[in-house]
Amino acid sequence: MKIALFNHFLPGVVEGNRIYDLSSVISWDQANPQASLIRLMERFEDLKPQIEDALSQVPSYALEDVRLQPPVPQPTKIVAAPVNYYLHQDEMNEQFSNAEYTIEKLGFFLKAPSSIIGPGDTVKLPFRERRTDHEAELAFVVGKQAKDVLASEAHRYIFGYFALMDITVRGKEDRPWRKSFDTFTPIGPWIVTADEVNNPNELGFQLWVNQDVRQSANTKDLIYDCYKFFEVASAAMTLEPGDILTTGTPEGVGPIEGGDTIRIQIDRIGEFSVSVEYK
Amino acid sequence: MKIALFNHFLPGVVEGNRIYDLSSVISWDQANPQASLIRLMERFEDLKPQIEDALSQVPSYALEDVRLQPPVPQPTKIVAAPVNYYLHQDEMNEQFSNAEYTIEKLGFFLKAPSSIIGPGDTVKLPFRERRTDHEAELAFVVGKQAKDVLASEAHRYIFGYFALMDITVRGKEDRPWRKSFDTFTPIGPWIVTADEVNNPNELGFQLWVNQDVRQSANTKDLIYDCYKFFEVASAAMTLEPGDILTTGTPEGVGPIEGGDTIRIQIDRIGEFSVSVEYK
Repeated sequence: MKIALFNHFLPGVVEGNRIYDLSSVISWDQANPQASLIRLMERFEDLKPQIEDALSQVPSYALEDVRLQPPVPQPTKIVAAPVNYYLHQDEMNEQFSNAEYTIEKLGFFLKAPSSIIGPGDTVKLPFRERRTDHEAELAFVVGKQAKDVLASEAHRYIFGYFALMDITVRGKEDRPWRKSFDTFTPIGPWIVTADEVNNPNELGFQLWVNQDVRQSANTKDLIYDCYKFFEVASAAMTLEPGDILTTGTPEGVGPIEGGDTIRIQIDRIGEFSVSVEYK
Repeated sequence: MKIALFNHFLPGVVEGNRIYDLSSVISWDQANPQASLIRLMERFEDLKPQIEDALSQVPSYALEDVRLQPPVPQPTKIVAAPVNYYLHQDEMNEQFSNAEYTIEKLGFFLKAPSSIIGPGDTVKLPFRERRTDHEAELAFVVGKQAKDVLASEAHRYIFGYFALMDITVRGKEDRPWRKSFDTFTPIGPWIVTADEVNNPNELGFQLWVNQDVRQSANTKDLIYDCYKFFEVASAAMTLEPGDILTTGTPEGVGPIEGGDTIRIQIDRIGEFSVSVEYK
């Protein structure tokens, strides 16, 4: 099932080119969509048949006629994997000659939840004079509280998957500073529940800047796959329902500038675009 | 005014050795103390006379008979200043020979909100074989949403101050990993509202491990003082009501181990202790 937030944070299910308004079917507080999403995830197995039955009776809209919102609007944390593809590790170490760049040595970093934007929103670049890059990533949302969960059990805790752009100022500052500017975490287009994704560790994905393919990769080349990264994160911290984990970007990162359009597409997930302008 | 959370996240005001239960005076949801705190901060100027009048009539308890909780239990982010005292900068660069260690070059980092514990709680060390340090800091809570706020205006956005221990595994991993283990952010003992602190950039403070003074400093030696650090953080990110900013630690950081007790005291703020054990 594809679960989207749309317009003023209404809940919806996407099928084909239409979005079905769930607000008459599930308990939902538009003023607190994150808490509402967490309630939905907790009760999802029970609610699923009810939601499926209701789709033929609820209002629906063409996707092009609604505004999609970030599907996970206010997590308590965004946990991110640094250099989690070997070819990206190579390009980082070549360009910035930092032999410490391995995920085994770096652990994880955090991005500020205030950096989240949704499909169709605008990335605002704070600096004209500093290189700022696109990074295409597969991300997922934690469905229930987790601590010390082994990779082999991680699938039980992941509610669903979506696409994430980890916009990044290059430089020597700590990653949270370089990656937490407002608008630096576009996510979308919706959450695809884990049952529909099947194997998240074998998904092709691409990122375009304007008409040019800049990144083209497959999650089968992750160093720490989704489940192993879940293990590493939950070994350190309690992961809360609604938290976002993002798996890191493959090779091909490069600069964006005002006027660009960035598009990301992930197999089985979907695609979305954002525009770029200078702040 | 000293605003504390106690027992099962009841709101209180501390005067001398007593805590006064505010739950009959202000609107408060014990199941969501962070949202309740934000509501209190937003309306504080109006509520203050009412709270003061009520103190003689509400139930009160000896402080030693209640359990203090972390005064800011669930911020959307914890923004932390790296190496923000010159003498700490010196000790870091001597011990870890990293010439990049300056706050101007590093920006800020983030700690996971899930690492917060309260006064009297227990820091749980994940590693016996890795050095894990105490770091004493002055922290504050954002009272209203802020973006691009100059240092000269920052005092209008800071609701109050408290003490924070930034527990840290030493090593080469990214700071968010080294500093976000569960229990790695003890805060307390309460929020002292900004009007009672007067000048936050001239507060003496100390940290003891067992009976030994390990850190003894004054916030007048901050490189970026509270207001300048607010400017730097709010230049990058929207700071949300209830977010925590912590100003960095002075010289004297050092290892802690299972069985230790750590105590922090800050002038005009107060003091609290936590115990340490191996996980």
